[in-house]
Amino acid sequence: MQHVSIIKIGGNIIDDKEATTRFLLKFSQVPGYKLLIHGGGKIATQIAERLGLKAQMVDGRRITDQSMLEVVTMVYGGLVNKQLVAGLQAKGCNAIGLTGADGNSVLAQKREVATIDYGFAGDIVAVNAQQISSLLEQQLTPVFAPLTYDTTGSMLNTNADTMAATIAWSLASRYNVHLIYCFEKKGVLSDPDNDNSVIPALTLPMYEQLKQQGIISKGMIPKLDNAYTALRKGVQRIIICHADELQTVVSTSTVSGTTLSL
Amino acid sequence: MQHVSIIKIGGNIIDDKEATTRFLLKFSQVPGYKLLIHGGGKIATQIAERLGLKAQMVDGRRITDQSMLEVVTMVYGGLVNKQLVAGLQAKGCNAIGLTGADGNSVLAQKREVATIDYGFAGDIVAVNAQQISSLLEQQLTPVFAPLTYDTTGSMLNTNADTMAATIAWSLASRYNVHLIYCFEKKGVLSDPDNDNSVIPALTLPMYEQLKQQGIISKGMIPKLDNAYTALRKGVQRIIICHADELQTVVSTSTVSGTTLSL
Repeated sequence: MQHVSIIKIGGNIIDDKEATTRFLLKFSQVPGYKLLIHGGGKIATQIAERLGLKAQMVDGRRITDQSMLEVVTMVYGGLVNKQLVAGLQAKGCNAIGLTGADGNSVLAQKREVATIDYGFAGDIVAVNAQQISSLLEQQLTPVFAPLTYDTTGSMLNTNADTMAATIAWSLASRYNVHLIYCFEKKGVLSDPDNDNSVIPALTLPMYEQLKQQGIISKGMIPKLDNAYTALRKGVQRIIICHADELQTVVSTSTVSGTTLSL
Repeated sequence: MQHVSIIKIGGNIIDDKEATTRFLLKFSQVPGYKLLIHGGGKIATQIAERLGLKAQMVDGRRITDQSMLEVVTMVYGGLVNKQLVAGLQAKGCNAIGLTGADGNSVLAQKREVATIDYGFAGDIVAVNAQQISSLLEQQLTPVFAPLTYDTTGSMLNTNADTMAATIAWSLASRYNVHLIYCFEKKGVLSDPDNDNSVIPALTLPMYEQLKQQGIISKGMIPKLDNAYTALRKGVQRIIICHADELQTVVSTSTVSGTTLSL
């Protein structure tokens, strides 16, 4: 089976121009089929504030009203996505920027209101694996913004970690999928205050325990919950590492970052 | 030879939500291979002003400094493009939003400074006809924002009429290309003050004469100059019409709008 590397780059890297440039060079050198999913970073919030809008967050998730939906569509789907695509093209990587609406690649539905109304937040309904595969087979490198859409034609804001995991497991029947979460930390930490306390291998039982102990918390929980679901659904290998370690992770067998297992 | 309809939708339609909805329905019903190129409309200027930036225009062309480049990349490449793509998907048209950077489809270079420094304005260097064809042959409908990029990885602002004409003639060796400029007027007018004074057929000599007489002026001049170049370069048919007339223009032989000829 063909191999595909699905790489998610976190918002904190996107916010750092130099770190982004370093990352894009490494990403452009990843061999074989590859796909990038980027977070949004703080710029959407900054632009929303400059436009006189106020960003509301609950559990690290943005509450997306109509005005904020327009801002994230502009910033994630336009500014961030196109700067990454143009940056990759300049490095010889034939990138094509996409949202879920483009090529009907990731269909979602507006999140149902339970305790919190997340507004225009999209929960993924279907990934068009056939469409994504045909782009990969044309030697294109899809670069996804964390945006989906619904059948009414509304764009929707979707968590980039969730989008990466869902695309990864949706491609698992067609490819050997490696899912790599690149961010500003060296991996999953056993001591949140010690950046060098990376857990090299994290099994699901270990994760459940660390979660109960509150050692793993906040944004890392949905990231890891998604990742373990992806492993259960056939993704071959999942690594969480520092963006600067991407090359080591993909090109050698050297252990770097945190490798997940069930 | 396969047929392709290349349709440009003007900014004044984009600025009108209802006119845009009517247009998208008509566009989604255009049979065969098709490609949409949209203008920017006034929203980039409005958002620039809300961000405290001031838009400068010379001869109807925007002077694009770094901040304005970010705004047009956000607004044209993100907000406008994705709303059109999602709207088309909701109507069953498998649209894929692109800028020139995506799939390296339209490479440009920063305009040289002659009398005016247009800033980050892109003059088209190469259209990747092979890439655009392969998307069309996958039954995808490319939707281009008026943005290109250069080899340094910078996005560039490009006139949508020019982009439509250049893509049209670049595809003319592969397809029978019909280029249709849809806007808020019924066609090229012999009396600028009379919306019903549409010239049904405009030859190049007639155009040159009307231009000298000042009857055809302003933004219509670059549009028509581009269009006649496209005719000379092998585009089969070029019509300038009201957005509401798109269906008539493509689906019947009824004359509507202005048909150009050499």
